[in-house]
Formats: sequence, C-alpha cells, structure tokens
Amino acid sequence: MFLDAGGSAPLTPRVRDALAAGFADGWADPARVHAESRRARALVDGAREGVADAIGVSASDIHFVPSAIAGIDRLVASIWSARRGRDEIVVSAIERDAVLHASSYIARREPREVPVDSLGHVDLPALEQALGDPGVALAAIQHANHEIGTVQDLDAVHAIAAERGVPLIVDATASVGHIAAPDHWDAIALNPADWGGPAGIGVIGLRPRTRWLPAWPEGDDWAPGGVSVPLALASAVALQERLELAEETAARLAELVHRIRADVGAMEGIDVVGDPEHRLPHVVTFSCLYIDGEALLTRLDREGIAVGSGSACTTSTLEPSRVLGAIGALTHGNVRIALHPGITDADIDRFIATIARVVPQLRAEAGAPTRG
Amino acid sequence: MFLDAGGSAPLTPRVRDALAAGFADGWADPARVHAESRRARALVDGAREGVADAIGVSASDIHFVPSAIAGIDRLVASIWSARRGRDEIVVSAIERDAVLHASSYIARREPREVPVDSLGHVDLPALEQALGDPGVALAAIQHANHEIGTVQDLDAVHAIAAERGVPLIVDATASVGHIAAPDHWDAIALNPADWGGPAGIGVIGLRPRTRWLPAWPEGDDWAPGGVSVPLALASAVALQERLELAEETAARLAELVHRIRADVGAMEGIDVVGDPEHRLPHVVTFSCLYIDGEALLTRLDREGIAVGSGSACTTSTLEPSRVLGAIGALTHGNVRIALHPGITDADIDRFIATIARVVPQLRAEAGAPTRG
Repeated sequence: MFLDAGGSAPLTPRVRDALAAGFADGWADPARVHAESRRARALVDGAREGVADAIGVSASDIHFVPSAIAGIDRLVASIWSARRGRDEIVVSAIERDAVLHASSYIARREPREVPVDSLGHVDLPALEQALGDPGVALAAIQHANHEIGTVQDLDAVHAIAAERGVPLIVDATASVGHIAAPDHWDAIALNPADWGGPAGIGVIGLRPRTRWLPAWPEGDDWAPGGVSVPLALASAVALQERLELAEETAARLAELVHRIRADVGAMEGIDVVGDPEHRLPHVVTFSCLYIDGEALLTRLDREGIAVGSGSACTTSTLEPSRVLGAIGALTHGNVRIALHPGITDADIDRFIATIARVVPQLRAEAGAPTRG
Repeated sequence: MFLDAGGSAPLTPRVRDALAAGFADGWADPARVHAESRRARALVDGAREGVADAIGVSASDIHFVPSAIAGIDRLVASIWSARRGRDEIVVSAIERDAVLHASSYIARREPREVPVDSLGHVDLPALEQALGDPGVALAAIQHANHEIGTVQDLDAVHAIAAERGVPLIVDATASVGHIAAPDHWDAIALNPADWGGPAGIGVIGLRPRTRWLPAWPEGDDWAPGGVSVPLALASAVALQERLELAEETAARLAELVHRIRADVGAMEGIDVVGDPEHRLPHVVTFSCLYIDGEALLTRLDREGIAVGSGSACTTSTLEPSRVLGAIGALTHGNVRIALHPGITDADIDRFIATIARVVPQLRAEAGAPTRG
C-alpha cells in the first residue's frame, strides 16, 4: 500500500502507454533539422501546450527542465540576476529546502523568512513589511505545503508583491494536478512526478513580463542538453488524466484524508497538523508523541505500508521537520501521507487500524510513559 | 535512413524493454526509505555498476546527471572551484561548445585553446607549454571528436597533465560505446544517447583522487532533484548491448565509413576530413565546395536520408563549423554521418548514389562553376 505519493506514484497504464509511444517516435534530438527530429519536436511542443493549457498560460511561457529542483535553482538564480542592486530574497518559513538553498547560493546570504501561523498561513502583514525593503530582489512563496497540506492565499500574496514591484516565484510542486493552478505568479515551478508523471523532469512557467538573465553557461537553456521527449509527453498525459478526474478524485481523497484526520487525530498523543479547510485534498501529516519517526516508518514498511516522514523523507535527512517546527508542532515521530487516486477506502481502513496497533507497541518498546 | 546517430539513435527492442521494466519497478524516489524506493535504488545502483564496469572504474566513481552537457557544466565548475588561486582553463581547439561555454562561465574568461593539426590531433608540445603555466586550473581534452572522428592520444595528454599536477577532464561523449574507453583521465563525461540509450540523462566519472568543490546550491548533488531511474537503467542496458557486439559492429561500420571516405572523397569538390586511421569507426564528415550545408541537409531529408551538419547540427546553429575551421578544412557545405548498428551495406550504397546525384544538382541550381 503506497501512501507516499508526494513526488512519486505508480504510473497508470495511460502514462505508460504515453512513455512507450514517446520512446518509439520521440527518440531523436528535437533541435535538429530532419524528419526524425521534427517528429520529436512535435511531441515535446504538444506536451508543452498540454501543460500550458492546464495552468492557463501560453506554451511559450512553459519550459521543461531536468527536475522541479533544477527548475527552482534556475528560476531563483535568473530572476535574482535581473535585479542587480537588490539582493535580498524573501521566503516563507515553510518553503522547501530547494528554495532556501537556491536563494542562499545565488545571493550569498540567507533569505529573509516570513513567519507562518499555527496552520501554516504566511503572515501577510509581515510579508508586506519585508517586501517594503527596497533591497528585495524577489519573493518565493509556495502555493501549498507538501508536508502539512496548507494552501496559501496567493491572490493576497501576489497583490502585495506586485504593488511593491517584487517578482514572485511560486513553488506549486505540491499542488498542481491536485487543486486548481494558482492565478497569480510571475514564475512558477511544477513537479510532474507529483501528479502521476515520471520522475526526471520538471516544468517551469514564466510570465512574459517577468525579467530574468541567464545565470548559466552560454548555450545552455533552462535545461542544459535538453530533456527527455518521452518524459515530457508522459508528464502532459499524466496531468491531463488527473485533471479529467480532478474534482471526483479530490472529493474522494479529501474524504479519506478527513477520516485519517478524525480517527488518527483522536488517538492518544497524536497531533494532526495543517489547515483543516484550505488544504491539499490528498496530503496529511501527523506527529506521534514519544515515537521515533524512522522507527515508525520502518515498522509500517514491514507491514507493507509505505509512508513519508514529515521532513524531506529521504534516507539522508531523517531529521526534525523544519516545517513542523515553524508552525509550532511536534517535530518528531511524524508521518506524511500523500494519497494517489488508486488508494481505496479499504486501504485507509487498514492504515488507520495499523496505526492504532503499532503506535502503542512502539511506545511500549521505547519505554514511553503510558496513562494508568 | 537515419545517418545522424551522433547523440541520438532509434532504441533497440532490448533498450525499450529495459525502459518498460524501469517504469514498472523503478518509478519511486530512490532516496526514500520504504520498499518501493529500495527497489528503485537497486535498479539505479545496478545501472551505475553496469556503466562503471564498462569503463573500468568502481560504481562509486560514477554519477548519473540530467545530460552530458549538464555533467560537463558541473565537472568544469566543481573541479575549477577546488583550484582557487589558479583560474585558467586549457582546452583543445576542437572541444565541444559545452566545454568552452562551461569554462568561460566559471572562470569569467575565455579558455586558452591549444591548436590541432590538419587531422585534428592536439599539438602536444603546445599543450605541454600551456600546462606549464602555474595559473592553470584544469585542462579539458576530448577523447574523440564528434564531427571529424579523430581520436586523441590520451595516454600522452594525461601524462603531460599529470606531470604538471593539472586535473584532466575528458569529454568521451562521442567515443564510449564505440571504441574502448580511455584509461587515463581525472574526470570524464559520457553520453548514453550516443551509444543507443535514451536522451535526458548523462554520466560522469571522477577518480577518487580528483579534488572538487560543489559549485551549486547546498543539497543539490551532481543531479539536482535526481535523475530518472528507468533512463539510468536503459542507459546501462544499451551500453551493455553495444559492448557485446562492439568489435563486430566497429569492424562492419568502419568498413562502411571507409567506403564513404573512398567513394565520396573521390567526387569532385568534396573533401573528407579527419584522421583516416585513429578515428571513431562510425563517424565521417565531408565538405562540399560551392554548396550550402542547410540546402544539402534539406535535400537529403526530402530523399528520406537524415544526416547531421558538421557544426552543432541544431536548427539554431547552422553556422560554419568551428572544428572544421580549426583543422583548416572547408567550413561550409559539410555533412556529418554517424552510423548506428542497424545501418546496412545497401543503405550506404543508396547514400553514396544519392550524394553523387544531388551534389551536382545543388551546385547547378546555385550557379556554381563547373569544369568544362
């Protein structure tokens, strides 16, 4: 049972068909002049149009990149580079590591963090104040948080940035494919693997009015050496497939997430975090008092249940979650669930029953205090 | 008939099977902790071992990157960054654009070019002199040239660099998969799409003793956001498939190239370039007097024959070839042929006959001088 579909999910038959078609017809380099290349170019152009349609922009505003993180790196660096004289980058306290690292790298200083409230919403007056500083080069505020699921009020955020002439980069890597794309941004990053597409490719969008300068070797583009045409094609097909069923899927997964929030949240010493209303339909994180996150992940894995940890959930960074710290929640023993459309009611029944069984066991094994 | 298999080729059934298997079992993020991720990790580890074996190094010396060019960018930047105090980069006059651009970008000055002779061999005394300068940070010399096919004497090149303590980056993006991998390098770049693998992935190798410093945001690796596991797997399978038949394929393709060199080279006003002996078995370039390169490519495309131009052969850079200029050859009207193993004797018969027919036609159309 795969409940870690944030940034990766099993591919549907339709996406696998698109990949096979892409490798059959799109193996050539789309930048050359002959028929084989024109065929590849037509496929990648079609994919670009598909993604552009889905987020309501024109295809020329969209670029495929090697990964969402590679896209964030290049967006931050190139928009920052067009704002010479201004060098501060403003971010929310719950942006992804990639945004913070890209910012520190190009600006050679830590970005200025705007706090969030206990549900994860950006403090708008604090944002307003931060962006009032004339030294601000750009702001990066996410659409939705990949750990706690909270969706930001980007209309308000973008209005604040626009009024001050500060370009806004929106990290939509956890939201597009699950909820409606945001309307207001100057640049945007998307992650196909998060909506059921293949890994190894990302998407960025830039409004025509957004100024940037290349911050990379001459001849490179947003994607040095290009990207895989079949991966681009499959990304667009996966997004199309998700959008066709978006409302239905979102309603069904939201109902399952609601059950997890209610049932697991009612268990002793477990906190469910994030905004209960303005949230991603398919993501939920909770923290368990007196439990080590890695031990819980490992136990669930042995039960055949794959979950993520609230933090970056990689083998190398099983460390306390910065996002949970920023909202004042427990930063240990946390589990992040991200549901893909193939998950059933029965899966969630089993997941809740398993949590109810293994959490007290792990606490007992760890010698945690129990109520008389 | 696809005769432009430098950097792209139709995928064989075995490579397409590897891709399908990779997307079935390797869709998860290999960096996470659960079973699905461990499966993906095993696939990418196996792929890394396969490529490492093929070039005679250990798997820990090998990294997958988003493309060969992205790999060259990061190798040049990171090795240069570990040599603070020394900032000059030395290259051959026929390195790929990517090497020159990566060098100019990180060093903020043009690299120093070492000339080549009329066959394309690096001038070793000139290299020796250039590397004697104490301000040299690194050298980048290709294994074989992708346009003219000439193979460098890397044993001699590396001996010169090693004696002066200068790290040597070897661009082997046109050679590995076609001829034996070079023995002597400090860092190396490889291009899976050049040996029949998929596009959208590259490979780099670093000797354990080669010093480098990350020249990218914290948390990024050689490949920011990782690479596609199925593309990595298919790259290794494609290399294995090529190596199993390497000697046989090389001998057969070399014979076809020899025929092109002899028959096309005997036609009036056509020059065949590159070393006739120390060369890639599958690549040949020739230049046609009084002919526009793009017109020839387009005419051949209409005849169902896909070739490359001698220059970077992209739609955007149909400009005189820098490589041909460096060896003193005609820089216009040039055609680059790169054969994949599926090409037959009959294909080459037809190609030679087509050249014999269309070149005089194009010259007549252009009003070129003809012999009485």
